[in-house]
Amino acid sequence: MNRPIVFLTDYGLTDGFVGICHGVIARIAPEARVIDLTHQVARQDVLGGAIALGRAARFMPDDAVYLAVVDPGVGSERRPIAVETRAGALLVGPDNGVLSMTWAELGGAERVVEIAAHEVLLHPVSRTFHGRDVFAPAAAHLSAGLALEDLGPAVSTGNLQVLDLPSPMVTPGSVGARVVTVDGFGNVQLNVTPAELEAAGLGPTLAIGSRDVPRVATFADVPIGGCGAIVDSDGYVALVVNHGSAAHLLGLSSGDSVVLGG
Amino acid sequence: MNRPIVFLTDYGLTDGFVGICHGVIARIAPEARVIDLTHQVARQDVLGGAIALGRAARFMPDDAVYLAVVDPGVGSERRPIAVETRAGALLVGPDNGVLSMTWAELGGAERVVEIAAHEVLLHPVSRTFHGRDVFAPAAAHLSAGLALEDLGPAVSTGNLQVLDLPSPMVTPGSVGARVVTVDGFGNVQLNVTPAELEAAGLGPTLAIGSRDVPRVATFADVPIGGCGAIVDSDGYVALVVNHGSAAHLLGLSSGDSVVLGG
Amino acid sequence: MNRPIVFLTDYGLTDGFVGICHGVIARIAPEARVIDLTHQVARQDVLGGAIALGRAARFMPDDAVYLAVVDPGVGSERRPIAVETRAGALLVGPDNGVLSMTWAELGGAERVVEIAAHEVLLHPVSRTFHGRDVFAPAAAHLSAGLALEDLGPAVSTGNLQVLDLPSPMVTPGSVGARVVTVDGFGNVQLNVTPAELEAAGLGPTLAIGSRDVPRVATFADVPIGGCGAIVDSDGYVALVVNHGSAAHLLGLSSGDSVVLGG
Repeated sequence: MNRPIVFLTDYGLTDGFVGICHGVIARIAPEARVIDLTHQVARQDVLGGAIALGRAARFMPDDAVYLAVVDPGVGSERRPIAVETRAGALLVGPDNGVLSMTWAELGGAERVVEIAAHEVLLHPVSRTFHGRDVFAPAAAHLSAGLALEDLGPAVSTGNLQVLDLPSPMVTPGSVGARVVTVDGFGNVQLNVTPAELEAAGLGPTLAIGSRDVPRVATFADVPIGGCGAIVDSDGYVALVVNHGSAAHLLGLSSGDSVVLGG
Repeated sequence: MNRPIVFLTDYGLTDGFVGICHGVIARIAPEARVIDLTHQVARQDVLGGAIALGRAARFMPDDAVYLAVVDPGVGSERRPIAVETRAGALLVGPDNGVLSMTWAELGGAERVVEIAAHEVLLHPVSRTFHGRDVFAPAAAHLSAGLALEDLGPAVSTGNLQVLDLPSPMVTPGSVGARVVTVDGFGNVQLNVTPAELEAAGLGPTLAIGSRDVPRVATFADVPIGGCGAIVDSDGYVALVVNHGSAAHLLGLSSGDSVVLGG
Repeated sequence: MNRPIVFLTDYGLTDGFVGICHGVIARIAPEARVIDLTHQVARQDVLGGAIALGRAARFMPDDAVYLAVVDPGVGSERRPIAVETRAGALLVGPDNGVLSMTWAELGGAERVVEIAAHEVLLHPVSRTFHGRDVFAPAAAHLSAGLALEDLGPAVSTGNLQVLDLPSPMVTPGSVGARVVTVDGFGNVQLNVTPAELEAAGLGPTLAIGSRDVPRVATFADVPIGGCGAIVDSDGYVALVVNHGSAAHLLGLSSGDSVVLGG
């Protein structure tokens, strides 16, 4: 019985990169179930990949091996790592922060190694496709039962790259927020929890620019084409439009600033 | 042995929604094979999803559990349902018609329940992501052997939402047709069968606007760039261009009207 | 135990074509692992499909059944074939060259049959969707253990369509190259090996038009936005931009000619 592998990249689905990694996995761990979380993280958007992986973690199998490759520094000195989390799941990817929100979600990084074992890497190791030559083989060997320490030398958990979401600016009567993600429906997720809206003393209607946005429970609670603020399925405040795109209506993209007034 | 799950949504592949549902399924039914039919139904196009699922049904495993989530009414009063078909396959999705062409294809809806069992739903149930919290868990439990009636209370089959294709207008010498779908190659499928062309008395060449379109067997029977009318792989009349896009050539999209003359 | 199936098409992921083929496979070979190499080969680009499949072959399981459908001649006289390679893997697809670089990679075509067995094909066989009615069933039956000769009559290996990459024009001081592929990151792969650059006597900097392009080991060896020439993960010379698109910077697409000077 191989452990399931949760796989996320920014490779896209047009080229064969993802499929080639699946082939590498199948050679090493032929029984492993591979869950493709997404391969359409924006190119080289390490933070976006970190957020997507971390938010998915509580819905994945407890014994999963996470394989995340968003790796603009491929072939440079950034280390390839494998992490054992306190909750038991294992993480594989570059040490650039893409794994950091996932170990935070899973109780923290308990043990870490640098992936270096000659018999794990595919040779010759390319300088540009470590997904194929380093990360997929490492994840597959872990899936098939290899011990973490057999991948390579231990790394101090204190030395790892960590990415964090910016915190919102909460003041009486207003919250200075950031757009974390815009999904394919145009829903705009902010870095704000309902508790932070309460802390700012904001009421049932938010002011965004000159627009009044009611806080509602779901899309259907505003008229077709109308805008509302919901608590989304990740537990964050999100701006939505019923049968439409809030990102388009409000002109917002990932990373933008938004002030929520009362 | 888990039953296979046939999975269709309008979630797209850019966000992690589909992958998260795969994770939910893997936790409950770790051996279930998941067949991703498509996740790129046009956003909130319930009819398009219903057509795609229904047309695929005769090629899927007989014991499949169908999981279809095109759900603009998520979080409102529309019911989440599970359906046992006369042919034996099971269907899971919102009661908005997205499943209706599939049960029609599979002998009809034999028994229906509303998905409500506390131990099936993921808690807290979000208001906006029932694919994750309601439908995927229900499908996975059915795949793993849970009895239909253990999902929730029975629903009368007479109360279900049903979607139908519009029928063509067949008169002597002409057929008033509608574009059902345009595929990625630009092939234009009409809501017309070959028998309906015969009933209208149309011959080996169809008149579409000022254009003469020959009825042919396959793409290669017209010159490169030429337009023909075939019987497509669903058994319907489709307008095609050899090495090209009929939708582009004829300026047609889903839902458009087309008059076929003799 | 079913053999794994490596699946490549130009069907795209928007329509249900790929998912329907998965259903057909699951009915015949319910335990077969399917590796989706890519389904976004450019529409009807047989050469592009041949290259993608051939380059992936050394990373796939040794006992794989390859299923490749890029088939602009569907329904015409081109033959559906199944090939046993010298290395043992099996190949299924149209006889239009899409399989030819893969058997070349796998030791050559040892035995070939035309897929014709009545009990293998799905009836009625459509004229336009042989992926569903001919190729997927054939691959699935091979995966499940059917002998090659039970698919249909033998075909002479000398009669098969073969596709080749054009060779570069190597002269003292210059290489006349062609763009083989542009990947989703905008990396431009040429039909040139490092040995051919040496043969032309080119040094550590290549002249491309009025631009000097240094030969480097990886993206990070040029400044952000800078252009370099690497040896890519397929072993070919590729033009790349650190954190950017070389195709965009240099205005290059698949099939374009490029002269590399010294």
